Amino acid sequence: MDTRTKFVLDESEMPRQWYNIIPDLPSPPPPALHPATLEPVGPEDLAPLFPAELIAQEVTTERYVDIPEEVLEVYRLWRPSPLFRARRLEKALGTPARIYYKYEGVSPVGSHKPNTAVPQAFYNAREGVRRLTTETGAGQWGSSLAFACAQFGLECEVWQVRASYDQKPYRRLMIETFGATVHPSPSPLTASGRKILEAAPDSPGSLGIAISEAVEVAAGDPQTRYALGSVLNHVLLHQTIIGEEALRQFELAGDTPDLIVGCTGGGSNFGGLVFPFLREKLAGRINPVIRAVEPAACPSLTRGKYTYDYGDTAGLTPLMKMHTLGHDFVPDPIHAGGLRYHGMSPLVSHIYELGLIEAVAKPQSECFAAGVQFARAEGIVPAPEPTHAIAACIEEALRCKETGEEKVILTAVCGHAHLDLPAYGRYLAGEMEDLELTSERIEAALATLPEHAR
Amino acid sequence: MDTRTKFVLDESEMPRQWYNIIPDLPSPPPPALHPATLEPVGPEDLAPLFPAELIAQEVTTERYVDIPEEVLEVYRLWRPSPLFRARRLEKALGTPARIYYKYEGVSPVGSHKPNTAVPQAFYNAREGVRRLTTETGAGQWGSSLAFACAQFGLECEVWQVRASYDQKPYRRLMIETFGATVHPSPSPLTASGRKILEAAPDSPGSLGIAISEAVEVAAGDPQTRYALGSVLNHVLLHQTIIGEEALRQFELAGDTPDLIVGCTGGGSNFGGLVFPFLREKLAGRINPVIRAVEPAACPSLTRGKYTYDYGDTAGLTPLMKMHTLGHDFVPDPIHAGGLRYHGMSPLVSHIYELGLIEAVAKPQSECFAAGVQFARAEGIVPAPEPTHAIAACIEEALRCKETGEEKVILTAVCGHAHLDLPAYGRYLAGEMEDLELTSERIEAALATLPEHAR
Repeated sequence: MDTRTKFVLDESEMPRQWYNIIPDLPSPPPPALHPATLEPVGPEDLAPLFPAELIAQEVTTERYVDIPEEVLEVYRLWRPSPLFRARRLEKALGTPARIYYKYEGVSPVGSHKPNTAVPQAFYNAREGVRRLTTETGAGQWGSSLAFACAQFGLECEVWQVRASYDQKPYRRLMIETFGATVHPSPSPLTASGRKILEAAPDSPGSLGIAISEAVEVAAGDPQTRYALGSVLNHVLLHQTIIGEEALRQFELAGDTPDLIVGCTGGGSNFGGLVFPFLREKLAGRINPVIRAVEPAACPSLTRGKYTYDYGDTAGLTPLMKMHTLGHDFVPDPIHAGGLRYHGMSPLVSHIYELGLIEAVAKPQSECFAAGVQFARAEGIVPAPEPTHAIAACIEEALRCKETGEEKVILTAVCGHAHLDLPAYGRYLAGEMEDLELTSERIEAALATLPEHAR
Repeated sequence: MDTRTKFVLDESEMPRQWYNIIPDLPSPPPPALHPATLEPVGPEDLAPLFPAELIAQEVTTERYVDIPEEVLEVYRLWRPSPLFRARRLEKALGTPARIYYKYEGVSPVGSHKPNTAVPQAFYNAREGVRRLTTETGAGQWGSSLAFACAQFGLECEVWQVRASYDQKPYRRLMIETFGATVHPSPSPLTASGRKILEAAPDSPGSLGIAISEAVEVAAGDPQTRYALGSVLNHVLLHQTIIGEEALRQFELAGDTPDLIVGCTGGGSNFGGLVFPFLREKLAGRINPVIRAVEPAACPSLTRGKYTYDYGDTAGLTPLMKMHTLGHDFVPDPIHAGGLRYHGMSPLVSHIYELGLIEAVAKPQSECFAAGVQFARAEGIVPAPEPTHAIAACIEEALRCKETGEEKVILTAVCGHAHLDLPAYGRYLAGEMEDLELTSERIEAALATLPEHAR
């Protein structure tokens, strides 16, 4: 075991391939279905939305996909990202556990999202696409795609959930600084948006609505495609560079994780971190427990239903088999905007069903308490999303303090909180409350599932 | 010349000493004077404000000062920082020049300030100090000191210029997340603050007033000391790790700078970047032109007077010989808050008088235009302060385009703009104007210089 705090790979050691876990699973995940025919969707169904290379990656059975040199070149702006041993946090907790965290806040926008935004922009540009559309909540994904589009000369239009557009202007301004356009959603620019606005002119919007708008615009223009920041197989594929680097860094550290903890919203940070370790586990080389941590306010894995549902509110996307709270579910306005999605990546959902991972849910005040403790010890203020994983790490480390167990824990701090500081302000002022999510509310939301899929 | 874009040092190659340029200069800078006796200040005069080790560093004649292991350990959270070749910006400009930038935005608070906050907190803690006080404008320095104090278990109290306290809450929230206390300045907690508030209850405050308050509190409590984020010799000393790393990284790149450009407010980023290169120049090993870039709204080097002046508004600090606009000068509210100081580091001022560096001033709209161009090309949104240096780089690179000269340009991007995005928003909305600073206003401010010093 190494005595260092930071484990850094040389650029020459950066992984040159993404890892596709599907061929290593005992069974493949169920296919996405066409919403009209209920037949598995084919490449031709997805062609209006995605470039051919990403459609191919979505269904590939190859275990590894080469990362193009043009993508590696942009990755090198911030990658390889560091793996830290959280020695100060361990000391503050008085735990015999060894806590490691992979830190993705070093990217230009401060999160893991550019890992997929960059290849998505690249493949679209290579196939002659002129413009990308997307949705964003608080703005992590929108700013990542705007950054990536600027790198490859693509236009970028972002539909941002109106509540965030109005209340959290910083990320919108970052998107605009990178040269992209932002529309508050619901917008009068799309049929989906107009329909919502007619019924509710003051609608605060939701990710599901914003997806509908971005998809509609992309589907209606042959020179425009759509980009999604989580959920889909190819997105998780691109994020596996996190776990591949972390595996090499654990070799440097001379250590092996007993527990891997990741926060889950759509599942891309979680999948990106854990899939390479899960490959090693399935091959019998290591045996870590793998635990997903979701917000108690949006508990798709722990309280949702595993069934076919739409990815968006208007029902424009294919039906995906996933853990879902129903595509009409609107979570309470917790600060971890990136975890407020009604569904869970079909691939993560499938792996959960296979019993390969555990899941727990955490209320946000526990998460912010963990975030403050982490910030004071480690010097990095974590984004609200990874505080969920940090809370679970601290819980386990304190358990080890009781038992004396020298457990090795790994997590990912998938972003910093520079643009989420008002949430910390509310926590520090004692103004944060944990609203209970009743079973009645979940049941009501699940009743909106497409009838043929229930 | 290397074809890479990013030049990274291994942790083992991180400098273990800071560089003190004073013994290498043809003459030492004039001493600071006691405001009452006008005699050079001695260590006993500074003891109420600073720990013994920092006082010793302020006047040391040693060329190198060892960096303590405890400081190196915290530095390793983000150091060595990367040196980038700005290939995308070069391409966008169509210039034959080669542009490099040292990027300090990778620190936990997103700027170069922790380079000195960490050793200052360390030496105070080692000498038994319980609490540090300081001032901050927009909050870069306050958040850096709060971070450093959390690392060494010190209490931290920050007086923040009221205008920023009210209008820019993000950095205040970061300071509080790290466990420090923030007071809007002027505050009723000090005699200096009360005096201002009596005359002007709605005073928006200034850095000079906030310094007076923090100094007053430190001087009045034997367990409390004061910390300054720029201007002083020991602060510039700590920042030389930037230039020392950059020198080694230029060796990796197999290149040599012809021009080094840094933004100047109090002078710590500039001194930190250029002093190690100036050492090499004075020794005849390289021959770069070195250029300071200051804001046209606060042009202490290009339009100020080289004379003895106070560092603060109330006249509590020693008199320092420096380029100054007068300690009562209140610059227009430009967005580069870190460059809004009436004076310039005595050491940088002295080196300017010796003719070893050049200085130019830039209006902020030119700087933001440069910042936007840099962000879209390089993917990093630079803080308003370094956009001044970037504007000067672009100006030179376009000159090279005319002449065909393959000039090698180095600058420092001393921070990112995550917490300064509203300023970019104003620029993009066309709402930014460059107010002219009249000679009359400068003359009026200079008339407030202490009479014996004029």
